[in-house]
Amino acid sequence: MGIVVMKFGGTSVADADKIRAAARRAVQAKRRGYQVVMVVSAMGDTTDRLEELAAQVHPNPPRREYDQLVTTGEQVTISLMAMALDAMGCPAISFTADQIGMVTDDVHSKAKIKRIDAQRIRRELAAGKIVIVAGFQGVTEEGAVTTLGRGGSNVTLVAIAAGLGADVCENYTDVDGIYTADPRIVPNARKIARISYDEMLELASLGATVLHNRAVEFAKKYDVPIHVRSSLHNRKGTMIVAETEEMERIVVSGAALKKQLARVTLSRVPDRPGVAASIFYALAAGNIVVDDIIQTQTSPTVAAVSFTVDLPDLSEARRVCLELCKRMKGMTATFRDDLAKVSVVGMGMRVHTGVAKRMFAALAGAGINIRNITTSEIRISCIIDRAQGPEALQLVHDAFALGRKRRAAGRKR
Amino acid sequence: MGIVVMKFGGTSVADADKIRAAARRAVQAKRRGYQVVMVVSAMGDTTDRLEELAAQVHPNPPRREYDQLVTTGEQVTISLMAMALDAMGCPAISFTADQIGMVTDDVHSKAKIKRIDAQRIRRELAAGKIVIVAGFQGVTEEGAVTTLGRGGSNVTLVAIAAGLGADVCENYTDVDGIYTADPRIVPNARKIARISYDEMLELASLGATVLHNRAVEFAKKYDVPIHVRSSLHNRKGTMIVAETEEMERIVVSGAALKKQLARVTLSRVPDRPGVAASIFYALAAGNIVVDDIIQTQTSPTVAAVSFTVDLPDLSEARRVCLELCKRMKGMTATFRDDLAKVSVVGMGMRVHTGVAKRMFAALAGAGINIRNITTSEIRISCIIDRAQGPEALQLVHDAFALGRKRRAAGRKR
Repeated sequence: MGIVVMKFGGTSVADADKIRAAARRAVQAKRRGYQVVMVVSAMGDTTDRLEELAAQVHPNPPRREYDQLVTTGEQVTISLMAMALDAMGCPAISFTADQIGMVTDDVHSKAKIKRIDAQRIRRELAAGKIVIVAGFQGVTEEGAVTTLGRGGSNVTLVAIAAGLGADVCENYTDVDGIYTADPRIVPNARKIARISYDEMLELASLGATVLHNRAVEFAKKYDVPIHVRSSLHNRKGTMIVAETEEMERIVVSGAALKKQLARVTLSRVPDRPGVAASIFYALAAGNIVVDDIIQTQTSPTVAAVSFTVDLPDLSEARRVCLELCKRMKGMTATFRDDLAKVSVVGMGMRVHTGVAKRMFAALAGAGINIRNITTSEIRISCIIDRAQGPEALQLVHDAFALGRKRRAAGRKR
Repeated sequence: MGIVVMKFGGTSVADADKIRAAARRAVQAKRRGYQVVMVVSAMGDTTDRLEELAAQVHPNPPRREYDQLVTTGEQVTISLMAMALDAMGCPAISFTADQIGMVTDDVHSKAKIKRIDAQRIRRELAAGKIVIVAGFQGVTEEGAVTTLGRGGSNVTLVAIAAGLGADVCENYTDVDGIYTADPRIVPNARKIARISYDEMLELASLGATVLHNRAVEFAKKYDVPIHVRSSLHNRKGTMIVAETEEMERIVVSGAALKKQLARVTLSRVPDRPGVAASIFYALAAGNIVVDDIIQTQTSPTVAAVSFTVDLPDLSEARRVCLELCKRMKGMTATFRDDLAKVSVVGMGMRVHTGVAKRMFAALAGAGINIRNITTSEIRISCIIDRAQGPEALQLVHDAFALGRKRRAAGRKR
């Protein structure tokens, strides 16, 4: 008998009706002959409410206590889900992370899973129960409660699926799957049937919030295919899987727009070893996440270093960089707060040529100025003015025939 | 350095301000040189809200899952309390029952404590931290979360104090202490300075809700004196302590009124062995808590059996008894739903005579009819009409000179 692990995010368990709907899905899977494990998040805005409570007593709560607090959100959902299943006549048992030995390191609020006691879950599955596991949480060797950071419930999903050697791993959410572009911006965006872990990682970095990087990395490491699908209907969503040779035939799988981008440019940076390191060390100390970095030598002794950051991080980045300019004679900093990044992602780029050319031509044809270009093995990104972002995304999406209407054309290419 | 264990009930931690006020008390005790452990309940109406959630998915939730759900209430408070202390510059650490090995049996919703890992708490106290423990909860040997039943946080308080050999055990609540009678009914009721465990047990059975029986029994067993006091000011409350010889000099310590009482009278009950057992077995099976039982033989072959129940239990008691009457030929049942019970409690009754006479005279003098009388070694109770309850309580209270104004007279007696 196969094992299915299904995860329901906060919006999919936001009230009693939704909890019942999720429970029904689990019962259906059980009737089809599966052993079923559910991973659930906190209901709706529960975590926000708990954070508000914390803010009322501490401006910057100790992380151990913060984790002890917010993990109650998932504990509420697991017990309600077990009750809902029991009310349907289906035996069920709920587990906190502690109760199934989901042991993590002790980095509170960003813990990494070390191991899971799969036997505890297997025993209850063998007894015919549906097992419900609290997402997002873990426990240290010493018994302190930890949380797994943003997207943590998906990490739990993948970890449980890997630990049990599950046959199916389903992520029920409020979207239909992964799209070739954000459908709110690109109306003809198409749902992707299958996508590789690496492509998903690139899209997640570019702002696809359905699955965060850590969950995808975990799935890739343990080769756990994830089915991202809607909790509102039964249609198939997107399978995130290991790369196959076939995938390389598709040059570009998706396009993405990162809207809230800012750029810092440092000019007359002394071109000697250690300078770049000291710059990015100072930024890291300020807890600033740097996106792309572009360095060019502007003369034999000085360089220009540009990097992008999320817009909310700009003010802190500005403070750090102005401080650096005081310490490094001659160096100056300029800032832009009105940029965006449009990207295309695809395994096929490894073997196909002309992708960059086609992308740049699409943007140039509409008079969109490309301010910077960065690439990875399977991604090309252009930094442009924010005001042109949506248009650029649509242009690039069409240029690679990603949309529904041009699907046939895309296949012929 | 001494250890103080202080417990704060739900109303004393109902919001951020009250949590801070409780935290300040702990800090003050620490400054006075104590090692401090706090036991806290769920904030305000949290438990009610969680029960409502449960009711939305299950009419009668499985107890294990119910416990898994409601214990999140205390977990929220402990972490917020630790944050509040940290914000005051006082190192603190919160513990769920599981984290301090507060092991119970597996009777969910009514679990009994088996042991506590006092070492875990001692280690943190030695490190200079204030330790905050979640009240009301425990954990089974297998790691399932349990709850300790009504008044469970006070059981936690006493268990922790006993486990640590604490010097002071304080129960902070929204009343000033234990009174000679309910001050809402008897305006001249007086706060009692010291009362024995046994007297407190009788008063608790009679409806004094500050401390439930289980907590007092636990305190008596381990001889842990409890100071019941207000969280709103610093005045002394009531010490609940082991009985001393001195206590027997006070004939009556307090009076109490149980207002919502009903009575069932079974007539023509066959007077043969096993009949009473079968009656009360049927009542227990219906989850009806029987208060007092009075049996009298009315002829050589039949008896009358009366018993009282809390008014809300009457309809179920009626159903069970009418069922019994069908099975036992000739037996009939009558019901009263308009009764109350007035009682006096005191260690001194053991050695002093005339208590009953004085009580009955006080009631008779006001034309109050006594319908039944029950006694224990340190208690006399009269069942009367509910409408006369408050007047009866005041009369009895005055007859034994328990009030503030007649205090001197009481001492002379």
